[in-house]
Amino acid sequence: MTRSGSPADRAGRLGEFERIARWLAPLTAHCPGAFGLTDDAAVLAVPAGRELVVTNDGMVAGIHFLPGDPPADVAAKLLRVNLSDLAAMAAEPYVYTLTTALPPDLPDRWLAGFAAGLGEDQAQFGVALAGGDSVSTPGPISVTATLLGLVPAGGALRRATAAVGDDVYVSGTIGDAALGLLVALADRVPPGDPADPEDAAAHRACLARLRRPIPRLALGRGLRGVASAAIDVSDGLVADLGHLCRASGVAARIAAPAVPVSDAARRLLAAAARGGGTGGAAPPPDLGTLLTGGDDYELVFTAPLAAADRVAAAAAAAATPVARIGSLVAGPVGAVEVLDTAGRPLGLGPGGFRHF
Amino acid sequence: MTRSGSPADRAGRLGEFERIARWLAPLTAHCPGAFGLTDDAAVLAVPAGRELVVTNDGMVAGIHFLPGDPPADVAAKLLRVNLSDLAAMAAEPYVYTLTTALPPDLPDRWLAGFAAGLGEDQAQFGVALAGGDSVSTPGPISVTATLLGLVPAGGALRRATAAVGDDVYVSGTIGDAALGLLVALADRVPPGDPADPEDAAAHRACLARLRRPIPRLALGRGLRGVASAAIDVSDGLVADLGHLCRASGVAARIAAPAVPVSDAARRLLAAAARGGGTGGAAPPPDLGTLLTGGDDYELVFTAPLAAADRVAAAAAAAATPVARIGSLVAGPVGAVEVLDTAGRPLGLGPGGFRHF
Repeated sequence: MTRSGSPADRAGRLGEFERIARWLAPLTAHCPGAFGLTDDAAVLAVPAGRELVVTNDGMVAGIHFLPGDPPADVAAKLLRVNLSDLAAMAAEPYVYTLTTALPPDLPDRWLAGFAAGLGEDQAQFGVALAGGDSVSTPGPISVTATLLGLVPAGGALRRATAAVGDDVYVSGTIGDAALGLLVALADRVPPGDPADPEDAAAHRACLARLRRPIPRLALGRGLRGVASAAIDVSDGLVADLGHLCRASGVAARIAAPAVPVSDAARRLLAAAARGGGTGGAAPPPDLGTLLTGGDDYELVFTAPLAAADRVAAAAAAAATPVARIGSLVAGPVGAVEVLDTAGRPLGLGPGGFRHF
Repeated sequence: MTRSGSPADRAGRLGEFERIARWLAPLTAHCPGAFGLTDDAAVLAVPAGRELVVTNDGMVAGIHFLPGDPPADVAAKLLRVNLSDLAAMAAEPYVYTLTTALPPDLPDRWLAGFAAGLGEDQAQFGVALAGGDSVSTPGPISVTATLLGLVPAGGALRRATAAVGDDVYVSGTIGDAALGLLVALADRVPPGDPADPEDAAAHRACLARLRRPIPRLALGRGLRGVASAAIDVSDGLVADLGHLCRASGVAARIAAPAVPVSDAARRLLAAAARGGGTGGAAPPPDLGTLLTGGDDYELVFTAPLAAADRVAAAAAAAATPVARIGSLVAGPVGAVEVLDTAGRPLGLGPGGFRHF
């Protein structure tokens, strides 16, 4: 890492070297090969018999998060969306690199909060900072991470390895983040009454799911040799299952009532059906919102019927709820049909999360 | 990699999936574990006995390159500044991940040119794309790469391992990129007469060094077990040698006349001394400009006198010129003293490259 910069500017903001030394270098404490960010690159051992799993994701203020979001939440989300990719590959987190592009007038406290968020999640998920670059930008805050994970050789889960007849499963609950987005956006009104304590709690729960998704790392590891294919839900359940189907050359049919929905989401959908919320031109959220909204970071995976017991055992071992929501079928490659309670196809669009 | 996007917008620009499939996925051709960017992450083998070397750098339009720079040059520079970090660690390039943050109205041809530049440099330097993320930004073009290299276990060169008495060497020539910046900037006038064919050739040569630095990979590898420490010149010769000294707990004394300068730079400095160039308030470039300018991406390294023959042999084997420019001394840690022909200290500031 090489950076130029003066010790502090006129507004009292620290220069790049000092920012790195104060807030980022301590994040390398558990990665001796990072040399405290004082060398050109990090040097890392990869144990024999392991393969390296590499993924990267960037986030831009105004696109992937709101400029006023707490910086610790931005840090947590950056790590977690990448960790979710590792989970979908059944990998264990190892180290990450970070590139921050920050406006020159950003107060030091933003970076301090961001680094604190990284530190908390590093401890929680067992990953360390290995290298960083810190640049200035005339544009919005932009942060990028590359996560490196390890997996036993040949043990990574893939998208392309599912077969017709396999069951389709999903972890956790789907749609909370899509509702959380309605809570977060200033120009939308979420369903439910903020003055009602239970509705307000539902708002908070959905917002937390949006800002701090839970990467399903333990479940991913437990599904090695059990699942036939896996993907994480970032673009939306229907869209991401479609990606898995396309990669595997199959189609899917899922039952909407089988998709797990949280109590908070159920409460808010009921309020929406009664006519509350979502002012302006946007239609009120419904089941389709949950199935096609994004940012869930749950795992969608497939397994043959013969592996059903092992799926249940893996879910129990990971203390992660898992629901069977449908199966893979022969059909137009990549197509995902969603059936309602009566077995009729739900009229969903092609789906896929649209960033705000 | 997961991305949402429509097939093409109203202006005929392709959606994210199509952009990735057309321009980025082909760059993974030599990295089967990248799965053509269709999975959540890449899976890579690391041979036994090798360590992984990891570095990352980001570039923002208007800060690290000019918005009108050819996109292939931007791609080349992004890879090369990262490859230069690998060179300084004596690593061999392996794979890289790429995050692009592009304005929504950027024409497709920019990404096409950028991908073409990546492809050329991948072939030249033996590196392949392993993973990517492509996001939209309301700000300027911003590109980030994380490079992974391999090095025999224990073979990486470091900054912190130099000792008092070691000789200081530098590869290639220093200062061309600083002069190239004067050629590139619309509000500066480079020394020399653009109507003079030899001056114009010097302008082109310096601009090429700015836009397409040459990572000294072969030299770096050849210096394994020979150099006592190494760093690449990104912030400027004086500043980066200072970083090496600080990490090693030593000081340095170098002789300005011993620093290798290209014929092009020599010609332009002579023109500047005659009074040409650099309108406005900026002083004309001089030797200090070369020694403290940045973006050279040469290697500065140290070796004991007893290794001088092996340094020369490594330089010859890599077909890379190397010059001895001074030595490490006891003194204020991190201090770099630059002496002129008469042995008097040159009055340089703390140095370090300031981005435009």
